[in-house]
Amino acid sequence: MSHSVDSDVSAVRRYIERHRAAFLDDLAEWLRIPSVSAQTDHADDVRRSADWLAAALGATGFPTVEVWPTAGAPAVYAEWPSDDPAAPTVLVYGHHDVQPAAREDGWDTDPFEPVVRDNRLYARGAADDKGQVFFHTLGVRAHLAATGRTAPAVHLKLLVEGEEESSSPHFRALVEANAERLAADAVIVSDTGMWSEDTPTVCTGMRGLTDCEIRLYGPDQDIHSGSFGGAVPNPATAAARLVAALHDEHARVAIPGFYDGVVELTERERALFAELPFDEDQWLRTAKSHAPHGEAGYTTLERVWARPTAEVNGIGGGYQGPGSKTIIPASAMVKLSFRLVAGQDPHHVEKVVRDWAAGQLPAGIRSEIEFSPATRPCLTPLDHPALQSVARAMGRAFDRPVRFTREGGSGPAADLQEVLGAPVLFLGISVPSDGWHAPNEKVELDLLLKGVETTAYLWGDLAATWRHAP
Amino acid sequence: MSHSVDSDVSAVRRYIERHRAAFLDDLAEWLRIPSVSAQTDHADDVRRSADWLAAALGATGFPTVEVWPTAGAPAVYAEWPSDDPAAPTVLVYGHHDVQPAAREDGWDTDPFEPVVRDNRLYARGAADDKGQVFFHTLGVRAHLAATGRTAPAVHLKLLVEGEEESSSPHFRALVEANAERLAADAVIVSDTGMWSEDTPTVCTGMRGLTDCEIRLYGPDQDIHSGSFGGAVPNPATAAARLVAALHDEHARVAIPGFYDGVVELTERERALFAELPFDEDQWLRTAKSHAPHGEAGYTTLERVWARPTAEVNGIGGGYQGPGSKTIIPASAMVKLSFRLVAGQDPHHVEKVVRDWAAGQLPAGIRSEIEFSPATRPCLTPLDHPALQSVARAMGRAFDRPVRFTREGGSGPAADLQEVLGAPVLFLGISVPSDGWHAPNEKVELDLLLKGVETTAYLWGDLAATWRHAP
Ligand SMILES: [Zn+2]
Ligand SMILES: [Zn+2]
Repeated sequence: MSHSVDSDVSAVRRYIERHRAAFLDDLAEWLRIPSVSAQTDHADDVRRSADWLAAALGATGFPTVEVWPTAGAPAVYAEWPSDDPAAPTVLVYGHHDVQPAAREDGWDTDPFEPVVRDNRLYARGAADDKGQVFFHTLGVRAHLAATGRTAPAVHLKLLVEGEEESSSPHFRALVEANAERLAADAVIVSDTGMWSEDTPTVCTGMRGLTDCEIRLYGPDQDIHSGSFGGAVPNPATAAARLVAALHDEHARVAIPGFYDGVVELTERERALFAELPFDEDQWLRTAKSHAPHGEAGYTTLERVWARPTAEVNGIGGGYQGPGSKTIIPASAMVKLSFRLVAGQDPHHVEKVVRDWAAGQLPAGIRSEIEFSPATRPCLTPLDHPALQSVARAMGRAFDRPVRFTREGGSGPAADLQEVLGAPVLFLGISVPSDGWHAPNEKVELDLLLKGVETTAYLWGDLAATWRHAP
Repeated sequence: MSHSVDSDVSAVRRYIERHRAAFLDDLAEWLRIPSVSAQTDHADDVRRSADWLAAALGATGFPTVEVWPTAGAPAVYAEWPSDDPAAPTVLVYGHHDVQPAAREDGWDTDPFEPVVRDNRLYARGAADDKGQVFFHTLGVRAHLAATGRTAPAVHLKLLVEGEEESSSPHFRALVEANAERLAADAVIVSDTGMWSEDTPTVCTGMRGLTDCEIRLYGPDQDIHSGSFGGAVPNPATAAARLVAALHDEHARVAIPGFYDGVVELTERERALFAELPFDEDQWLRTAKSHAPHGEAGYTTLERVWARPTAEVNGIGGGYQGPGSKTIIPASAMVKLSFRLVAGQDPHHVEKVVRDWAAGQLPAGIRSEIEFSPATRPCLTPLDHPALQSVARAMGRAFDRPVRFTREGGSGPAADLQEVLGAPVLFLGISVPSDGWHAPNEKVELDLLLKGVETTAYLWGDLAATWRHAP
């Protein structure tokens, strides 16, 4: 091809500076739509949000823009093919729905009336995830302007769902039904963040998740602990013993087979994690917790990013009201969730949890165990060429070296990885202080524009390093 | 003294037969008063019930009858001194309040409209406890008639409280405030039952009870198990591990010092328990349970009657609704109750539980522990002369040997034992099928009249075997 894939930094920055005001005005318009997927009375707003985004993507230049209905809220899909048939295909993922927000939750201003203060844009969705979806619009325009192209250097696809804040109940089916159109060489997820304002980072993976509820049944009804106590099995005791058996004395998960296949951290990864400016006291304040606690032999960052866990999310049984009631309860339940790391198969984990749980219970206690659909872990190796491209593009935008993190949470990105068979890369410019899911959510305007700038370099870098064989 | 303390069996039976109809009519009248202490809209009924009983005791011949107010429902006190100053003093305990009952709970007839079917009297309170209080009225009359006395062979006192079904919140204070008037050589509690229609038994003791709520605090608010899971302590896990640590692998309580002072079962007691026609399958059906489970080395009856226990009455923490919520909860709580046996001091048990709990928790988990007022255990030795009297009187009434049981529950009788310093004896004729606290509560009329007959013999027997030094 004749035209360049490399973007001149000053050309990119000039372009962004020139279009910055309009870009922010447009984003503010989108943020005014309260697209809260968890609240049915906002269903129309979520639909309006999808339509608004579709129009904006059309105005950006995407030749194909479609609103995809689901059994729940609609997603938006857009395509912009490269004029180079050998270019790689990239699918960008984000979401246009937002968490609930109300002024009285502690917002200083109306959550759906965006305001800029101190170079920060405050609104629900500013960082999670409308802001981070929207930087792709100005980003691709800057990429074209700075390279003199009329089509992107990569085949660009966007999928922006409308139910992420409601656990993406229809996302997997949507991706499966449209797998051919969504086919990509890499997925770029713009729904995470980076380490801090001063430390740009690329996330290389997310943990997976499988969770279950275990219900334990003892007596057919609550019985009197005086008449029967000490002589029949108590399901609340059984539930507690089950939970206590989850971990050994080193806080390591004690379920046989749980760690099967786990990809261990390499020395290089441990060294990279250790380089991050991590302040454990500060981290504990963020965690609202009063001491670290976890698997022996691993640091806090390793524990939350790269180690699988078992956590109790809920436990209940018997009398929980005020005062006392001397019963042996008829039943008890525990909700357990397991975070998974690369190499762990959720189906195998489900099997070993079921086998283990069945073996823990005393005679006279019956159990039921129910698993929710699992989310697989995803991890892109540090030497993957697309990951190197993201890091380079980000480093150019931020004028400093980029480090690597992971994400302890789990997300629908894993469905894209699994269904499409493509590696998942994370490109996010949000910082921990942005207040995702909290009052006064904001995005730092400088960082938002660095997101724009990163994508302006990224498509060219990817195309240059990762061309398809002709 | 010149007159007899021994009652001729046929004279007693003739007297009871002659007065049986009037006795049952009177009892039915009392049962019509819905003296439900737990329901404030029945407060007037509880007062009416006290007044009704006071009038009935006056008509029986008690020269002193008083209604004692408390901060809650009133108690009824009555005294009938013996004409023999050297006679022992006996205090009978019972209660005139009843459990809630409503036709729609599953009653075949109105719970407060007594009916006789198949020689059974059905009504709320028929067995627990109005029937068993009321047999003392005809009993003392039969005792007088058969012996030709004008005053009982013992100094007879009755204390019938009005809040037993509401955990007797003011009973201890009432007994302490009136300890001198209540002074007795023995307490007879008529608020328990016997083994079965065919196997009359005397209960020799009740377990004590101390219970607590332990609240555990982790993060200052629920936090995300993806972001933080595996790296901070989880209070629900801590609660479960605490509960799991309650028992060792032999289902023995593992709290250091918990068994301090426990009076072990003697070989004689174990042999007497073993003689009872115990059917474990039948017992399990009564317990609505599906397997026995308890301290290794003890039978089911020994476990519920003579061994201390630790039970979880309630446990709760985190998300307990439908579906899943991937949080580390901010707090969790457990409600524990400990049944105590003779020789255990509730204050010592509280101390060892507190020490043990504090030592179980990981760094970063804060705890609060709150104990309710304890009930002491009580146990009367098998060779106690008053216990022998009760067994003999019952044996005469039932025309068969009387065996010995204990009661696994706990009751306010222990306050009488402790404040008055008197041994507690249990005289009850109710059987397990009577349905205490359940719909269609009933009392077997034949057994009710055996209760009358037992007391007709008891006062004479006690006076003959247990005279005070002149
Ligand atoms: Zn998001
Ligand atoms: Zn009772």
